[in-house]
Amino acid sequence: MTGANPTGAVSIIPVPGIPELRAGDDLTAIILDACRAADLQLQSGDVLVVTHKVVSKAEGRIVDLGGITPSDLATRFAHSNNKDPRQVEVVLRESARIVRMDRGILITQTHHGFVCANAGVDASNVPGEDTVCLLPEDPDASARSLRARIRESTGVDIAVIITDSFGRAWRWGITNVAIGVAGMSPIADYRGEPDQWGREMAASIIAVADELAAASELVMGKTDARPVALIRGYNPAPADGNGQQLVMLPANDLFR
Amino acid sequence: MTGANPTGAVSIIPVPGIPELRAGDDLTAIILDACRAADLQLQSGDVLVVTHKVVSKAEGRIVDLGGITPSDLATRFAHSNNKDPRQVEVVLRESARIVRMDRGILITQTHHGFVCANAGVDASNVPGEDTVCLLPEDPDASARSLRARIRESTGVDIAVIITDSFGRAWRWGITNVAIGVAGMSPIADYRGEPDQWGREMAASIIAVADELAAASELVMGKTDARPVALIRGYNPAPADGNGQQLVMLPANDLFR
Repeated sequence: MTGANPTGAVSIIPVPGIPELRAGDDLTAIILDACRAADLQLQSGDVLVVTHKVVSKAEGRIVDLGGITPSDLATRFAHSNNKDPRQVEVVLRESARIVRMDRGILITQTHHGFVCANAGVDASNVPGEDTVCLLPEDPDASARSLRARIRESTGVDIAVIITDSFGRAWRWGITNVAIGVAGMSPIADYRGEPDQWGREMAASIIAVADELAAASELVMGKTDARPVALIRGYNPAPADGNGQQLVMLPANDLFR
Repeated sequence: MTGANPTGAVSIIPVPGIPELRAGDDLTAIILDACRAADLQLQSGDVLVVTHKVVSKAEGRIVDLGGITPSDLATRFAHSNNKDPRQVEVVLRESARIVRMDRGILITQTHHGFVCANAGVDASNVPGEDTVCLLPEDPDASARSLRARIRESTGVDIAVIITDSFGRAWRWGITNVAIGVAGMSPIADYRGEPDQWGREMAASIIAVADELAAASELVMGKTDARPVALIRGYNPAPADGNGQQLVMLPANDLFR
């Protein structure tokens, strides 16, 4: 998978100069302009990684809490946990299922199937006191659209990953994961392949899109306005994959 | 954190030519030889990432199943799930607590505190039909020792991360995580820092050691004998951190 460069090294390159996005902005054109300004020429095999927040903003997925009337459930949970009832209400509206609602923490399954804190609803790095940002409605569609428009503009076939930072069970801290994928398979499936001793490996489905997402965070930084990175040298095989392939099926889920 | 290079790019560089390890082998010397042979000079700020399997092998953490007498519990679970009772017995012996034992899956908490499948006991990429590999007894101590010996030999201060690949709740596939850390903090804590709009960020503890571990897997490949990578350009601040800081405390764990 890393055949293009002799040493097999992979580079994670931040794309600087992405401005604050507003609903209706042309994110593809903005990213391509930023690449040009930084003298970064997109190449076949590149993986473009974009944090969902700029996608959500360009797609208008910003909610003014002033217009939200909280339900009784949202109000009760908010009051006992020192939260804004309107923001809790938005979380409930973005959720398909409550996984845990305990100790002030609200872990839900979103309508996309992602299990994460607050259904991905977030108030940080959003302008305005009373606004929150939602996940994109369909992150895979957003990734496919970015990829298609980049191919139209540049003629280059790249993969696109849209990320969010999720907490994990049993481990402290958040890491970036892939919520939307286009142009590659999000997993590398080594099941049935022999190990270096010729024995079949038992359980080796690697979530490479999540690893690429995690790698991208290393050049982004949480407080900075650096929401786009380019990963060069990994060269995933072109494939029609999507982020839903990383969502565990209910039948396999031991932690409902 | 990425101040050393002008563009802020991070490189993930595989270290080729690591031979099969045996108990008692000098892993530090072997890694330094491999770096030299590949013309890779270690630099201050580098993060050396090593998969636990070579550490475990050098430390003799290989078990011959021929000498294992399975308990009744191990035998019952193995027989109803088409597993080797002796291997299940080793998993139980490496566990401090069973988290799930269902549908043929055994998720336990190891004596280190890690929650993962089969207590990290693995038969793939281990020579011999009847042998399995355990996690290092103390991966933080292994990381500290590697780091100290590299500093002795080269005079260079690097960070060291020892990895394993863990499954995750709710998401399909495994990703590399950090089980041992030395020379850096495994987390970047942005709590209380202002976002780009001057508002305090609510929950931003980033598990950077897990992200570095995930990034390293991109140049390793599961079936290959490429267990060591160098991450250059991230330049973590030198700190006395460890992998235990990534283990969620029971008081915070909603998924016991």
